[in-house]
Formats: sequence, C-alpha cells, structure tokens
Amino acid sequence: MKDPFRTIEWKQDHIRLLDQTLLPLREEYIEIRTVPEMCDAIRRLAVRGAPAIGVAAAMGIALGILNARDDDRGAFDTLFGQVCSEIAATRPTAVNLFWAVERMKAKAAANLDVSELKKVLVAEAVLMEQEDRMLCESIGRIGSILLDEGDTVLTHCNAGGLATAGYGTALGVIRAAFEEGKKIRVFADETRPLNQGARITCWELHKLGIPVTLIPDNTAATLMQRGRIQKVIVGADRIAANGDAANKIGTYSVGVLAKYHGIPFYVAAPLSTVDLATPSGNGIPIEERDPCEVTHIAGVRIAPEGVPACNFAFDVTPHHLIAGIVTENGIATEPYEESLRALFAQKGSPVRS
Amino acid sequence: MKDPFRTIEWKQDHIRLLDQTLLPLREEYIEIRTVPEMCDAIRRLAVRGAPAIGVAAAMGIALGILNARDDDRGAFDTLFGQVCSEIAATRPTAVNLFWAVERMKAKAAANLDVSELKKVLVAEAVLMEQEDRMLCESIGRIGSILLDEGDTVLTHCNAGGLATAGYGTALGVIRAAFEEGKKIRVFADETRPLNQGARITCWELHKLGIPVTLIPDNTAATLMQRGRIQKVIVGADRIAANGDAANKIGTYSVGVLAKYHGIPFYVAAPLSTVDLATPSGNGIPIEERDPCEVTHIAGVRIAPEGVPACNFAFDVTPHHLIAGIVTENGIATEPYEESLRALFAQKGSPVRS
Repeated sequence: MKDPFRTIEWKQDHIRLLDQTLLPLREEYIEIRTVPEMCDAIRRLAVRGAPAIGVAAAMGIALGILNARDDDRGAFDTLFGQVCSEIAATRPTAVNLFWAVERMKAKAAANLDVSELKKVLVAEAVLMEQEDRMLCESIGRIGSILLDEGDTVLTHCNAGGLATAGYGTALGVIRAAFEEGKKIRVFADETRPLNQGARITCWELHKLGIPVTLIPDNTAATLMQRGRIQKVIVGADRIAANGDAANKIGTYSVGVLAKYHGIPFYVAAPLSTVDLATPSGNGIPIEERDPCEVTHIAGVRIAPEGVPACNFAFDVTPHHLIAGIVTENGIATEPYEESLRALFAQKGSPVRS
Repeated sequence: MKDPFRTIEWKQDHIRLLDQTLLPLREEYIEIRTVPEMCDAIRRLAVRGAPAIGVAAAMGIALGILNARDDDRGAFDTLFGQVCSEIAATRPTAVNLFWAVERMKAKAAANLDVSELKKVLVAEAVLMEQEDRMLCESIGRIGSILLDEGDTVLTHCNAGGLATAGYGTALGVIRAAFEEGKKIRVFADETRPLNQGARITCWELHKLGIPVTLIPDNTAATLMQRGRIQKVIVGADRIAANGDAANKIGTYSVGVLAKYHGIPFYVAAPLSTVDLATPSGNGIPIEERDPCEVTHIAGVRIAPEGVPACNFAFDVTPHHLIAGIVTENGIATEPYEESLRALFAQKGSPVRS
C-alpha cells in the first residue's frame, strides 16, 4: 500500500512539504526555498516527528548551500557552518535533527570542488529521505510480530508516515500488522495541546482504512481499566543509551498507566533516534513551547487572561516501563544498555555505518 | 472572602444562573422560567457539578409546580410526578440529582393544600441551595488540614464554587487552606473535552487570588515525576458505599498516577454525593456524551470526518487509590464501607437527616 501523501520531497531547487498544521481540514503542500523558511517550518511544526525533522534538517542544509559560489571553498565552509547552526537551533529534543546535521557535516568534510560538494550534499539529503522510508518499513515488518490478531492498540501523538519520510514508526508497526491481515483497531490519543493524534494520526489511519477511534488523552486509563486496550505503541524523539525515551508530552503518563494495567508498552524508532552519547533520560533537553498553545485552541482562548500555563513539549518514559524498543535492526529489550549497542553493531546497519 | 459569583439563585418566579458554557470569555447570567429550559441547562452543562446539579434539580421542580392550580391536588400530584421524571432524566451519573428529586418528593408527600405545598417546595429548594454552600464551607474547613504550607495541589475538572451553590468541594478545601494563610499553589488539569479546568477552575481561582497554572491533562504525570505536585484533590459525582468514586473523565488516570508517585489523592464531596445504595463503582452509570465534543473544539473540527470518538463523561476511581474522602461530617478513610456509614450516622448530619 502506497502512502496516500508525501511528507517531504526534494524538488531541484526547493523542498515541497505537507503543511501538517493545516490537517485534517486542509491538505496543502508548501514550497520551502530558503533556510529561514525551513527553520520556521520546523519551529511551527509544519514538519514534525523526529525522523521527518532529521530529513527536513538535511534538506534544509542542502538548500542553504545550493546557491553558494563555486569558486570559493572557504566562503562555502563558512556558509555551510552558518546554515548548520541555524538548522540545529530550531528545536532541542529530537536527536535526529543533530544526527542529520552531523551526517551532512561529515559529507561536507570531503576534499571536493564546491560544485561537486553541493551535488554530494543534495544527494545525501535525498538519500536520507529514501533511507528513512525504508527503515520505517523494516521497523514495521520487525515490530508487527508484537501485535496479535484482534488487538486494540493505543498510540499517542503521531509516529506515522507524516512523522517520518513515510510509512511511520509506531504507526508503521500497526500498518505492517494490518497489511499482514491481522485485525487491528487503534485508539488515538488526541495529544493536547496541538492535537497531532486527532489531526494527523486519525487522518493517516483513516486514509489507510485502519479502524481508529479518537479519545481525549485522559480517557486512555478508563479504557485500560475496562480491558479494551491490549498493546501500546508510540514513537520517540530521543532514546538515551539506557533506554529512557523522550517522546511527546503525555507519553510518560501512558507508560505508567500501561504498567499499572499490565499492558505491554512499546517504542518504535529508527536507530538515528537512539543517542548513545546521552546516558539516561535526565540528559535529554525538554523543549518548552509558548503557553498560548495551551491557553488557546484553534485560536480561541480557553483560559482566563493572566493565568499561566505549562507547556512541556515532551516527557521522558523511563526504560523500566518499556517492554521493547523496535528498530530497523531488531527489537531491543532490557537491559537496553546492552541491547541497543548490539543493534548498532549489527552488520548492515543502514544508519551510522 | 465572598464568592465572586453566584452559581444559581431562586428569584420569585424564575431561576437565575451563571451560564458556565460561556466562561471564561463571558460572565453571563441566564433566566430559567420553565422545566424544559432547566433540563436543557443541565444537559448542555450551563449548570454542572454534582452538588449544583442537585440544587438546580430542586429549583427546577419548584419552578415546574409554581403555576399549578391551587384547587386540584390530584392534578398537582400528576404534574409534580411529570416534572420530577423530566428533571431526573437529564443526566445519569451525579447522584445528587436523584437525591434532590427524592428530597422534593418526600416534601410533596405532605398532606397540605396545594397553595401551601408550593410554598413548602420552593422553600425546600431554596434551603438546599443555602445548605449546600454551608456544607461546602464545612468540607473546606475540615479538609484544609490535609494541605500543608507550601503544597502544590493538582485538581481535575471543576469542583469549585460553580460546581456547587458556592465555595466548592475540592476547591473549597484549597480555598480554606489558602484563607488560613497557607501558601498553596494549584495545577489545574484543563479537563478535555469541555475544558472545565481551563475555563472554570482557572477562572475561579484567579478571581480568588489563588495562584493557579493551567496544564494539559497529559502533563500531570511529568510534573509528578519531577516532584512538583504534593497532593491531589478532586470532587465526585457519585461515591459508592465502598468508596469507589465516579468523577469527571480523567480522574481515574490522575488517581493511578498519584498512586504510582506516592502522592496522596483525596476526594471532597458532600454526603449527598455518597450513594450507599450502590455497593461499588461497577453499579454507577457512566454518561456517554456526543462524540462531537471530542472531535470539535470551540466549534472547530480537529479530527477528520468519519473518524469516531469516545466520549465518556466520567470514570470510576477505585477506593484503594483514594487516601481520604472529605465530607461535611469528617474525613472518611479505608475501610470506606464503615467510615462512610459512620459519617452518615453522625449527630447533626445536615443531609438525609
């Protein structure tokens, strides 16, 4: 089954991406022609989801050096450094952003003419987009074993095709199980404050024909209490070396509730989301966003003027609440310190090779 | 400190109530002149909160018989029965509604002239409004011992002055502690789908000068994880004989999270909310409301067309998650079977006497 949309795409001299802030009311593609435009798109979540942010970062860098003069490598290197810094400053939590910047930097270190280097960097960004989709399909195939015929699966936020170059991570697992013929139903947490679950996950699953029911975030517990949820699967924005996983705010809540009700809680993410340099979740920076995202919904004020609001964009689920982390190289389980490193070391690892 | 608003008030020939659906943007009082208008106000949550619904029900019944002919007791009884049935059919979960209807029925059984009976019933409804405010002040005074100097308290939905005739239950406890001079801060869950926490609790606390910060429902867990919440206190719509408490959807989630983090979780409610005839939470009917309340926010669609949504209005928190139930007669603790009955049996119980 083909993706019924294209998250992000390189187009000769610009980037085309689906503006996810307008979903589900409008399916509108925008053209990104400058680095500031790409930074803005990442900041305002027109493109979001850790793997998709990684691809957007790489393409943004490629875009930023596209018009560099071919005859001045020194000027090129300066420009390249500036572009990388601008892109890296957009959002702090998803490690894929920094991973993508580092991968582009490694390519840019090559001893090549500027004109060649520009081609190499564009090719690398395009490759990362293609790879990401393949990785997600691997994650889906590998993870689908975790879902049984008849399962109802809870997911939080959006870890679907739109959070990646395509196919998705957590939704990739659900999709693969569904494509294998298993009867799977999904509860989607709406995921306040920006409702990515309601707006994007429901939109994707509905397009794919996978039965999905929208719930307020606060309703998951009672559904678990009633025995109506068999599995939980979510994505991640950064996974520490010990398996602690940062993901959209509310994921930790779901993790605790799943543990309490004896429901397996899985994380699905490419290895580019695993940050071996960060020992535990304590080291993951958590983005705080504008309180207006909480005090207003769809432009309408829901709280009185003068009342402050708390708007953490992410939280950290400790590894002991996680039954397994599905990657393109296999499923890691406790102790994650060892199992995650082992997956990196595997032959044929398509990332960090 | 006086309430900066009046939830509901009897006015000679009509009822005046604050339309809570318009808060916080507009503070608008509406006049209720017929039983269907009152039923509509209860159904669409213009007046909500178990104790306030009880008062609204009693006043609605008084309104319904106000123009009955004085010379036909048989016709009066028929009309009275019809009015009671209409009022009782508005919402299923809050037991205060049925408690109020039964209390009015007991009064209506008196062997009096119709003209006398009408006065008695109006007086009873007005008395219930006055009593409810007094009960809430008792709940506040009794419960404030549970809150310590410097505590940050999480509450869910609105169990404030607007959920009652005044002062509030859970917010009454917070308010009493604050009025005693304790430094108390509050996190208010926004309480999707209808945002009573954001709209009403924040509005009330802000008016009272009690520091409040709004959070999405899914953010409570990470604040608990960070040690930023010391107590949880919520209201209830019906408490079973064993202490299981039905309250706004999301309360059970908070109960599990509080247990997991070792944070005491309290319920505050008048004894009129305790339903000794219902042995456990399994017997409490849970209202399901229009899925549009979940798929739309402030009139704006947030989910794709064709995606169903789950909209339980309440959930049940089992008694073993509850550290104490604060009533006007004292604080019940495990085993609730015994402690709740003992509170009913107390001398001077202002309800069910």
